[in-house]
Amino acid sequence: MRNFKLTLCYDGTRYDGWQRQGNSDETIQGKLETLLTRLLGQSVEVAGSGRTDAGVHALEQVCSFRAETDEDCETLLGEIRRFLPEDIGALALCDAPPRFHARLSCREKTYVYRIWNSAEPNVFERRWMLAFPQKLDLEAMRAAAAQLVGEHDFSAFCANRHMKKTAVRNLRDVEISRMGGEIRIALTADGFLYHMVRIVVGTLLEVGAGRRAPEEMRAILASRDRMEAGPTAPAQGLTLWSVHY
Amino acid sequence: MRNFKLTLCYDGTRYDGWQRQGNSDETIQGKLETLLTRLLGQSVEVAGSGRTDAGVHALEQVCSFRAETDEDCETLLGEIRRFLPEDIGALALCDAPPRFHARLSCREKTYVYRIWNSAEPNVFERRWMLAFPQKLDLEAMRAAAAQLVGEHDFSAFCANRHMKKTAVRNLRDVEISRMGGEIRIALTADGFLYHMVRIVVGTLLEVGAGRRAPEEMRAILASRDRMEAGPTAPAQGLTLWSVHY
Repeated sequence: MRNFKLTLCYDGTRYDGWQRQGNSDETIQGKLETLLTRLLGQSVEVAGSGRTDAGVHALEQVCSFRAETDEDCETLLGEIRRFLPEDIGALALCDAPPRFHARLSCREKTYVYRIWNSAEPNVFERRWMLAFPQKLDLEAMRAAAAQLVGEHDFSAFCANRHMKKTAVRNLRDVEISRMGGEIRIALTADGFLYHMVRIVVGTLLEVGAGRRAPEEMRAILASRDRMEAGPTAPAQGLTLWSVHY
Repeated sequence: MRNFKLTLCYDGTRYDGWQRQGNSDETIQGKLETLLTRLLGQSVEVAGSGRTDAGVHALEQVCSFRAETDEDCETLLGEIRRFLPEDIGALALCDAPPRFHARLSCREKTYVYRIWNSAEPNVFERRWMLAFPQKLDLEAMRAAAAQLVGEHDFSAFCANRHMKKTAVRNLRDVEISRMGGEIRIALTADGFLYHMVRIVVGTLLEVGAGRRAPEEMRAILASRDRMEAGPTAPAQGLTLWSVHY
């Protein structure tokens, strides 16, 4: 049984997210498993580095799967490319060590939230950004973000109310940059809770718009209460940017 | 009666091109005229710098229209932005001199044809590029393009068989560049014939793929025969890039 590492990108606009859902095939995992099962003539299960929500995109998503086959990776990658829909791209395929698992082996992930912060419309990249034309105070947002960096219990930034496992994550870095009309918020952590990036971004946007003080972040973290944080930013602005092993 | 200059951009994917067609409203001009007629409470006719084909995009398209109104341009621009569909963007609006006409006053236009020349799929920008994974000889394409530069009768590169007016155009510049997997062919001229850019690109692609010699361009021009040139490249790779007055 070989173990494969497959690197993907996708425009998540029309998908119900990464994770296969019962009968619905409109998930990235569902599309992949159906395709690999047909191509390889055996039931294939795919593990992703993480589950992206409905409407979230990936510039680099990594997944792993086991299969019995003699095909070389280049040929198999060509076949995968030929049959994947236009909005899912296969970037690379290689044999992985036997114990490699896309989720369990993952050391760190970077998500980028893209905001189009201009009155001028952006017709070409609008699908992958949140349109937010109001003025934003980036310095205040950076001051707020700095308080979130480090190892914390991020329960206040988690949409799953019935989490039994630990909500402690190490948010190694938050970088906020502007390029013309676009603002990017890049978050790097060893793991992310359900909706964590989108709730952090929703809270930072409140700070940027002057509706909250940057200093409130510590109290929000300490409360461990989802109601203390800001709203969940829309999925379409979010892209899984890179995955590190 | 005021005369306005409106600068637009659009993702042409779902439109039947610039020019209004009878009942069909799925044209850029149609959308604009309907919107301006409603906004200004008077029948408004819009002239574009040129007619982009169905499926062709614009990073900068300029149009002009006359209307009776006291509204300042900023307010009117805001209203236009509020009602335009997501894939048409209004970039700027200003009062123009009385004799300004978007098409007749236009001095020069630049079109860019974008080619995704890589086996690796591009899921994010595929709507605005032609996917052409085969190897292309850019030097041969540049040598071929150089022979087209200058004032020529471009009948061989025109899809309109019943043109009564002159087919002489001044192709001031053709620039072919590569950035990673993307190749851009930028054509600048005082005017373009029907399908001219797409036929030039289709012919250059044959040269790049080694199916034609660069030296053939002179003979194709001299023939004035559409059958001598290459195929018409697909619309989706083409973008009206800039318009000069």
